[in-house]
Amino acid sequence: MKLELTYKLKEIAKILNAKFVGDPDTIIKGINEIHKVEKGDLTFVDLPKYYDKVLKSKANTIIINKKVDCPDGKALIFSDDPFQDYIILVKKFHTFKKCDIPVSKNAVIGKDTIIQPNVFVGNNVKIGKNCIIHSNVSIYDNCIIGNNVVIHSNTVIGADAFYFKKRTDYYDKLISCGRVIIKDNVEIGACCTIDKGVSGDTIIGKGTKLDNQIQVGHDTVIGKNCLFASQVGISGVVTIEDDVILWGQVGVQKDLTIGKGAVVLGQSGIAKSLKGNKTYFGSPVQEAKKKMKELFLIKKLPEIIENLK
Amino acid sequence: MKLELTYKLKEIAKILNAKFVGDPDTIIKGINEIHKVEKGDLTFVDLPKYYDKVLKSKANTIIINKKVDCPDGKALIFSDDPFQDYIILVKKFHTFKKCDIPVSKNAVIGKDTIIQPNVFVGNNVKIGKNCIIHSNVSIYDNCIIGNNVVIHSNTVIGADAFYFKKRTDYYDKLISCGRVIIKDNVEIGACCTIDKGVSGDTIIGKGTKLDNQIQVGHDTVIGKNCLFASQVGISGVVTIEDDVILWGQVGVQKDLTIGKGAVVLGQSGIAKSLKGNKTYFGSPVQEAKKKMKELFLIKKLPEIIENLK
Amino acid sequence: MKLELTYKLKEIAKILNAKFVGDPDTIIKGINEIHKVEKGDLTFVDLPKYYDKVLKSKANTIIINKKVDCPDGKALIFSDDPFQDYIILVKKFHTFKKCDIPVSKNAVIGKDTIIQPNVFVGNNVKIGKNCIIHSNVSIYDNCIIGNNVVIHSNTVIGADAFYFKKRTDYYDKLISCGRVIIKDNVEIGACCTIDKGVSGDTIIGKGTKLDNQIQVGHDTVIGKNCLFASQVGISGVVTIEDDVILWGQVGVQKDLTIGKGAVVLGQSGIAKSLKGNKTYFGSPVQEAKKKMKELFLIKKLPEIIENLK
Repeated sequence: MKLELTYKLKEIAKILNAKFVGDPDTIIKGINEIHKVEKGDLTFVDLPKYYDKVLKSKANTIIINKKVDCPDGKALIFSDDPFQDYIILVKKFHTFKKCDIPVSKNAVIGKDTIIQPNVFVGNNVKIGKNCIIHSNVSIYDNCIIGNNVVIHSNTVIGADAFYFKKRTDYYDKLISCGRVIIKDNVEIGACCTIDKGVSGDTIIGKGTKLDNQIQVGHDTVIGKNCLFASQVGISGVVTIEDDVILWGQVGVQKDLTIGKGAVVLGQSGIAKSLKGNKTYFGSPVQEAKKKMKELFLIKKLPEIIENLK
Repeated sequence: MKLELTYKLKEIAKILNAKFVGDPDTIIKGINEIHKVEKGDLTFVDLPKYYDKVLKSKANTIIINKKVDCPDGKALIFSDDPFQDYIILVKKFHTFKKCDIPVSKNAVIGKDTIIQPNVFVGNNVKIGKNCIIHSNVSIYDNCIIGNNVVIHSNTVIGADAFYFKKRTDYYDKLISCGRVIIKDNVEIGACCTIDKGVSGDTIIGKGTKLDNQIQVGHDTVIGKNCLFASQVGISGVVTIEDDVILWGQVGVQKDLTIGKGAVVLGQSGIAKSLKGNKTYFGSPVQEAKKKMKELFLIKKLPEIIENLK
Repeated sequence: MKLELTYKLKEIAKILNAKFVGDPDTIIKGINEIHKVEKGDLTFVDLPKYYDKVLKSKANTIIINKKVDCPDGKALIFSDDPFQDYIILVKKFHTFKKCDIPVSKNAVIGKDTIIQPNVFVGNNVKIGKNCIIHSNVSIYDNCIIGNNVVIHSNTVIGADAFYFKKRTDYYDKLISCGRVIIKDNVEIGACCTIDKGVSGDTIIGKGTKLDNQIQVGHDTVIGKNCLFASQVGISGVVTIEDDVILWGQVGVQKDLTIGKGAVVLGQSGIAKSLKGNKTYFGSPVQEAKKKMKELFLIKKLPEIIENLK
């Protein structure tokens, strides 16, 4: 979920004390990170290599650190430090609210749902019908959980994105104001961590099953009926299509796609997108058949070297 | 622990509205998954490759999806979907019971045992003498913990097995009704997850020590005085004999045995049974000496290729 | 933090009922493990290969299992089992104290710090200003947390070191009485585990950011502005200098140093010290360039073998 608001460009520019080009009465409807930006949103860009992408995006207002030509129908806010100004806006419109009780009064919990002892349910959380939320689970503000969902003990839904910008001698944090959305019939094991989106949503698709100790990064979108074994680690901004199977301890790097029906064997490391309906293995990952052949040849090395002599 | 009951074959068949062969007054004493089946139990089979194994098992009653000859002294219940019918029985005799308080009144806690704040102890849990259960630990119903056991914070004992059957467009869950049994003098680190057995028990043997963030799957049986370093992941139905040492981040696939005294170096991946009293390394794992030689030869490749020219 | 006390040598020897050499009125100021030993401390040694190191250390009193010459100005306590006698002393001066309430009355919590529901804060914990401690976090006794620190849900700070001594048929535990110290501006993800020092401190340096499910072993010291991705596992007694980046699922063995500014790619396994300002990859780890070349040559194997024919 983007940070929703209704502000005019001139009002936002005033908050930032910044110069701008574009219609001062442009309505800004949301603050959104570039991966998730929608029509009517404000976003930011500070790296030249992304200027073009962001200027052509659906955003109607862009905080930018260069005096470029303003695309038709858009507005630009000029800033020496767009990241910093974006954070100023996020902080202004999104405040972390302490919860004084374990299950917030603003939470909505469906019929026949069981909440076991010591669970934390934050503000504005919605949980559907017929779920079991086991003991010591933590669900941060604004997360949405469907019907017939089981979440095992000590799992954390909706912690902040791990998203920092390096400054000379410290890291600046991009404050997350997204959500986690868990669809119907999902089961999540114990001690899993599923981070909220930075400005959008992290989504676990209908019927997907997660074993214990699985990590899912911010803004990652997982399809239907996937099966992930224990200790799988998935970075942020990953797309995993339906029916994908990841075996134990597989690692998935950020910003890539795993195609429908792909199967990835245990301990594999995935650093680029994978096509669907194939089986993969290795770190770095290859098609399993190729990897098996490679392993076979490596085992032949002593013989090969012997022959060479 | 299997699901114990005392029912006649004709009563069970009536619940399932199913045809059967065998003595209608056969007494069924328990419902049990094939790996753990005992004399007098009912079990199920739906894959032709397992027919023979199950028909020859100790079960006295078998739900099966083919009209085979009934072995002497046994009974068969015929079903189009044995998995589904097995689940119907499990659900009938095993209901998840909400706990309204963090430490169930049905739990038994031994002398001089310390339960720190925010611990959850489910129904019928037994904890021995002189234990420390640290804050935010979750112990599901029916688990049994011995004497002098230490369990560090946020560890989860007894979550459900990760055991699903693929249907055309969803997964069916095999409901777990087993237990976790932790023997005397065991120490378990923080944020570990030890799943209950499907119908039997997951067991951690006397004096075994687990570091933090370790995963142990359903029905796995671990021997005495084992030592597992942090982030080790062990699947279901694994047998680990006494005195086994697994270093950090080792992964163990399901349904295999690691022999007494085996040592497995960090990040190794174990996909088949290992003999005891040897040292192993690699993913897939090999004897450490062979793996070291292989790594040495790989480093020689540039030289070998140079010589070839 | 070492176990502080003020005892005379003759008093300590009496507790242990042991013979000693040295001035009976020698003042012992602390009990400390060899890695952290300071002037005025008592320590122990039981392995001949460490005799020399320990006898030359800053300790003024050494429990030892051999009648060696006593170094000038030091004292020796003779014992058949120095480990056992060391543990007897630790147990005498350091008792685990049950906490009856989730946030100990002895804890000190700074201004504007938010403690979310179901957090456990042990005895003598100090938390600075302007922190957020999210739900279900566990902080063991004596830990020290700076200002502007964020700790996400279900993380465990200060569990016991994983430090056991093998006996014939069981393991003996070295009881930890150290602390975890977390400096200002640190952020720690969800479901992390950071163990206390055995007798010293585990330290997370200023501005360092940890993603979810990270393990940090006892007595490990991490510098400033490091960035560790999810599921990194770091053993005990490791030194990580400033500005080190470890990507997801990296494993680090005990008792080594990673130099300032080193970058280690995902799933790498680090078994020896690494120089700073370089990029590394692989298990076992190599400089990334070398590893990439190696992977390239392995892919060429089929062609090489073909040429050989």
